[in-house]
Amino acid sequence: MPIARVHRIIAQGPDDASGLQAAIASGTIDPAGILAIFGKTEGNGCVNDFTRGYATQSLTLALARHIGEERAKAVCYVMSGGTEGAMTPHWTVFERVDGDGEPGPALAIGRVHTAALAAEDLGRMGQVRQVAAGVRQAMAEAGLSDPADVHFVQIKCPLLTAQRIGEAEARGATVAVRDTLKSMGLSRGASSLGVAVALGEIAEEDLTGALIGRDLGLWSGRASASAGVELLNHEIVVLGMSKGWSGPLAIDHAVMADAIDVEPVRAALDRLGLGAPGQLGQAARDRLVALLAKAEASPDGEVRGARHTMLDDSDISSTRHARAFVAGALAGVVGRTDIYVSGGAEHQGPPGGGPVAVIARKA
Amino acid sequence: MPIARVHRIIAQGPDDASGLQAAIASGTIDPAGILAIFGKTEGNGCVNDFTRGYATQSLTLALARHIGEERAKAVCYVMSGGTEGAMTPHWTVFERVDGDGEPGPALAIGRVHTAALAAEDLGRMGQVRQVAAGVRQAMAEAGLSDPADVHFVQIKCPLLTAQRIGEAEARGATVAVRDTLKSMGLSRGASSLGVAVALGEIAEEDLTGALIGRDLGLWSGRASASAGVELLNHEIVVLGMSKGWSGPLAIDHAVMADAIDVEPVRAALDRLGLGAPGQLGQAARDRLVALLAKAEASPDGEVRGARHTMLDDSDISSTRHARAFVAGALAGVVGRTDIYVSGGAEHQGPPGGGPVAVIARKA
Amino acid sequence: MPIARVHRIIAQGPDDASGLQAAIASGTIDPAGILAIFGKTEGNGCVNDFTRGYATQSLTLALARHIGEERAKAVCYVMSGGTEGAMTPHWTVFERVDGDGEPGPALAIGRVHTAALAAEDLGRMGQVRQVAAGVRQAMAEAGLSDPADVHFVQIKCPLLTAQRIGEAEARGATVAVRDTLKSMGLSRGASSLGVAVALGEIAEEDLTGALIGRDLGLWSGRASASAGVELLNHEIVVLGMSKGWSGPLAIDHAVMADAIDVEPVRAALDRLGLGAPGQLGQAARDRLVALLAKAEASPDGEVRGARHTMLDDSDISSTRHARAFVAGALAGVVGRTDIYVSGGAEHQGPPGGGPVAVIARKA
Amino acid sequence: MPIARVHRIIAQGPDDASGLQAAIASGTIDPAGILAIFGKTEGNGCVNDFTRGYATQSLTLALARHIGEERAKAVCYVMSGGTEGAMTPHWTVFERVDGDGEPGPALAIGRVHTAALAAEDLGRMGQVRQVAAGVRQAMAEAGLSDPADVHFVQIKCPLLTAQRIGEAEARGATVAVRDTLKSMGLSRGASSLGVAVALGEIAEEDLTGALIGRDLGLWSGRASASAGVELLNHEIVVLGMSKGWSGPLAIDHAVMADAIDVEPVRAALDRLGLGAPGQLGQAARDRLVALLAKAEASPDGEVRGARHTMLDDSDISSTRHARAFVAGALAGVVGRTDIYVSGGAEHQGPPGGGPVAVIARKA
Repeated sequence: MPIARVHRIIAQGPDDASGLQAAIASGTIDPAGILAIFGKTEGNGCVNDFTRGYATQSLTLALARHIGEERAKAVCYVMSGGTEGAMTPHWTVFERVDGDGEPGPALAIGRVHTAALAAEDLGRMGQVRQVAAGVRQAMAEAGLSDPADVHFVQIKCPLLTAQRIGEAEARGATVAVRDTLKSMGLSRGASSLGVAVALGEIAEEDLTGALIGRDLGLWSGRASASAGVELLNHEIVVLGMSKGWSGPLAIDHAVMADAIDVEPVRAALDRLGLGAPGQLGQAARDRLVALLAKAEASPDGEVRGARHTMLDDSDISSTRHARAFVAGALAGVVGRTDIYVSGGAEHQGPPGGGPVAVIARKA
Repeated sequence: MPIARVHRIIAQGPDDASGLQAAIASGTIDPAGILAIFGKTEGNGCVNDFTRGYATQSLTLALARHIGEERAKAVCYVMSGGTEGAMTPHWTVFERVDGDGEPGPALAIGRVHTAALAAEDLGRMGQVRQVAAGVRQAMAEAGLSDPADVHFVQIKCPLLTAQRIGEAEARGATVAVRDTLKSMGLSRGASSLGVAVALGEIAEEDLTGALIGRDLGLWSGRASASAGVELLNHEIVVLGMSKGWSGPLAIDHAVMADAIDVEPVRAALDRLGLGAPGQLGQAARDRLVALLAKAEASPDGEVRGARHTMLDDSDISSTRHARAFVAGALAGVVGRTDIYVSGGAEHQGPPGGGPVAVIARKA
Repeated sequence: MPIARVHRIIAQGPDDASGLQAAIASGTIDPAGILAIFGKTEGNGCVNDFTRGYATQSLTLALARHIGEERAKAVCYVMSGGTEGAMTPHWTVFERVDGDGEPGPALAIGRVHTAALAAEDLGRMGQVRQVAAGVRQAMAEAGLSDPADVHFVQIKCPLLTAQRIGEAEARGATVAVRDTLKSMGLSRGASSLGVAVALGEIAEEDLTGALIGRDLGLWSGRASASAGVELLNHEIVVLGMSKGWSGPLAIDHAVMADAIDVEPVRAALDRLGLGAPGQLGQAARDRLVALLAKAEASPDGEVRGARHTMLDDSDISSTRHARAFVAGALAGVVGRTDIYVSGGAEHQGPPGGGPVAVIARKA
Repeated sequence: MPIARVHRIIAQGPDDASGLQAAIASGTIDPAGILAIFGKTEGNGCVNDFTRGYATQSLTLALARHIGEERAKAVCYVMSGGTEGAMTPHWTVFERVDGDGEPGPALAIGRVHTAALAAEDLGRMGQVRQVAAGVRQAMAEAGLSDPADVHFVQIKCPLLTAQRIGEAEARGATVAVRDTLKSMGLSRGASSLGVAVALGEIAEEDLTGALIGRDLGLWSGRASASAGVELLNHEIVVLGMSKGWSGPLAIDHAVMADAIDVEPVRAALDRLGLGAPGQLGQAARDRLVALLAKAEASPDGEVRGARHTMLDDSDISSTRHARAFVAGALAGVVGRTDIYVSGGAEHQGPPGGGPVAVIARKA
């Protein structure tokens, strides 16, 4: 019976694979079982964030020594740039092993790589459909037939650079947007709507390209998308609860309605047996394996009727502001800073809010 | 009998005095009673943050129409730059009126302007002594004889610019530091040690100039200092509880040990009758008049043993990171974003932590 | 007969009117004759650059003491934020006096304020037409009937903020763009096309709203537009050579084809009698009164076939990169750093290039 | 007889080794002959610039396929972060081959790796001495006995991070500075003084640790140092003219006295046969192989008596401002943007200025 194992490793830099190496050397991690590695890397999380590619290259090199280059490259590396505030750069390693764990239901994992996305499809229905198909394929891999059992879908998607735009236009194609930073948002948005379609949250026929990035009333409560300059296709990881899996881990999720709406997260922690008034105590903190969240600046420029300045700041991208602030709100609840808060929540949760997933060791 | 009134007004920009004008027009605020205005303005909070001076100039112009230029200039304008994350730019107006309010003890306010500080005294014992004397004078003004009754001392202090350093060196003087951004930290630190001396938290004889900015084990639990390019002296506002004052307001304080140590703040809210498991509900939120906090990146590069990257980020000042993150942690507790989180907590609370004051309407 | 006088004054900060005060006190400047003040202020030149408004408020206050508030407000304050690189913050004061100067042709000045622009007209034909009408009015004021005699048209135009967009949408209007930083470019572009229409460089019937910000092959060789958050209308200043004016000053202009195309500027200097191989010598430098230029990152991501990274940098706006770089190229030619290089040259000169005006004392 | 070959290759990103691969595949470059690769990469050039390490890892991987990992690692990779303004990310490959080239004197190259530098020696005499010894060794390798024949010494040096400082202090050592960004300047400064000592520009006995980073009247006219987080030792490359070398290339150098002092560079170009009034024409441009320069913000806050704001800007490091501006000044002279302008010129040329080397094909 498959068992999902999740390991959280602090990184000293984008190229720091030493913790991963140590875990492999000590037998804590079996490199052959690694399906995906989520990383928070210390770049700006925007267009020119090369820490994502650097981390991917470094971790791939480290794994290649154990399982060969080809299988090392098949791992899903989902690097989310930006550890603003006191967030801690770290890797979250998702492993699938076979054995006799505690009987399920337990955390189940499925992962898929899509084909490359043409620059002209980015932020349009072509991307929505490609992602929806990929999510269904990943659910099948995880043995998750009921969308209700899916708690989180992490997607790494491409973006447009001045160069990619130039190449597309050179061959007569038009792109959805010429602003490279904006392209990250459109790519995240289209990918998330693809998740919503696959999970039945939105019907594909209710979507058109014109709604992408515009009608923010359309969203998935379980999608998390990060855009990066280092890939041209999608990497999809589906996380859920399955009777077909065993082991010590469980997952649940919540949706924050705005940047300070932490009570739904507290409720999800409670459902996983980590309930507490105020901040988690040490024992509960230790049972928390991963907190995965999305953050964004509310597009209307307000939080609960009070003005914020994130969208008017031309020195710091609003995605960086939002990651720092929401990471503070969530770290205040769980008492840890090695959490995964990813910026840009277009169509991921309601405008200004976002989905949050919690993985914990069962009591 | 004196009554302290505190008004929180959201600002649409550094020059937005319209809310203040409206409150005066409606009689909510008596301009003659204004002692101080604390402002969170949307600049970078660092050396070249001109939103502080712009706000001070704009509010002074607005008040001058009512009480004349001279008295308008006597108001303490404590502008703290930086509304990172979802913090809301706003003014907090401190007013002293006479009348028969509910019997005390109640919030008491004292304020003082010091003389200009010579550039060569900045960050040295000369600044510590000047501030200590100013705090004692402000306590006397507020009728606060026992330092134990003082819950918060807000200080606006000067900084060094390339030009001021040049002038000092031109006359043969040496400055404590030539880095302008660093000068803000030294100025905040020396000012805060001045508060600690005045409140008996540290004995002056235990201090030397060499310890300022270095021995961070020396700190005040009630000092809050902001440095700004727009002033050359200190503006000091003391807040405490006094039997000699009446009115509906009360103040208490807490000390955060690190950037996510929100439980002491929850306890202070509880002591003021705003207790709640998790986030404050609407009723308690409405009774919260002001939350004043200091934030900084822990100098050892870690929070609870986990690495942060704030001190290695050359794109965003660590003060901006810390404000955004701690504002998130505190806004998650109180459910409001119009809170006053000020950066740079040198000698203000333990390293990586900081003092927090809460002003609330009595039940 | 009218005489144009131009004064260049270095500023120690956005609020530094001391140099202006001194020039008035010494009689060098007659405040009654001031038509416009161009300023380079040390903000980021983007959406949240409050140094422009701060400077405008400070200079207005200073002039009001001499000519009263109403006339002080009638002066055109064109504050361009951003003194990247070694550019020097400074004011360029344009004055019109009457007297018997050396016979013309000489520098002639006209200035106009337009009405406020509705948020929904920004970046659309409504803005183009409003500006074209304003330019014709300013030419008439300057006695410039032949567009060929016009060498530079400086325009200060508004931008959209999250709040202004919200207000427009609240009343059912749609704006041309929801990205505030992008709105600055559209506003500059539409304003510049308005200049092109007024100067006969482009026929109005050849323009449509859809071409604004898109067909960059349409441009004016004499327009210079700066967008600022501090105004809602346009301020227009026309500079040209007129037989109807006398005095010691002359103006000419050039168009840079790309960010390093300095030879046309050298040729314009030569036509004004400031010719030199290499950098201007001291004598020529002293005769240079003002250099006014526009800069932008070439939208195709290249300069002479070599890649630049300005459009992919999410830490620093491309407008800041371009100002710093082009200011370096021009300062290398003239040997001065107190030059006026303004960012964002949409429809101002060819893509990646920009117009440059030079004002010099006649030999 | 040794022949020096220098190849300039534009990079599409820090990890783009495709141009190098193509040059090797076509036989233009013999990987066995590569001594050093200088790179301008598109990071911030400050503490958290990971593009340098990413580029080094990527180029090493590419070369290892041809010459094996060990020899690939022996190449000196001098990655200078920061392509502000319109600077073009590119690699400059220095190759030594043997054959019968045109008789010398011609460009000669020597390179050396030093041992790791202890954190507590950084910015102190220990670093000066280690670098001086390394330079002498590199000169010997290049057959350059007379320091007068040396025109440029490029050094890559380490910096301090919060972590390295913590480790040093944990073992009881003290570091020269705790500010990580400042540590880059001290490291560049001490390295450059090491060059000055080796070239006889300064006598070692005239130096003390206290003068490093302080007495900026002490400088080398041929040193260029870049600090990077990715190395702990020094990589030194000496460039000069030697009768013992043959081939088509020549090198000369100049010293800029300030950020706009381009005439000495024009004179150096002239000495190499690339003289021109104004900007280089196409023919001369094509003969220009490499321009290597250092830039910094003048520490006194002025250029030719006019104020600059680079040192007071807390949003953008002064090193980024200076690179953008000086790159503009130099690109305006040579008409190319693929030039190597490196930030931080402490003790490299006079304060505010810096050394410039030019490599050109002989006529």
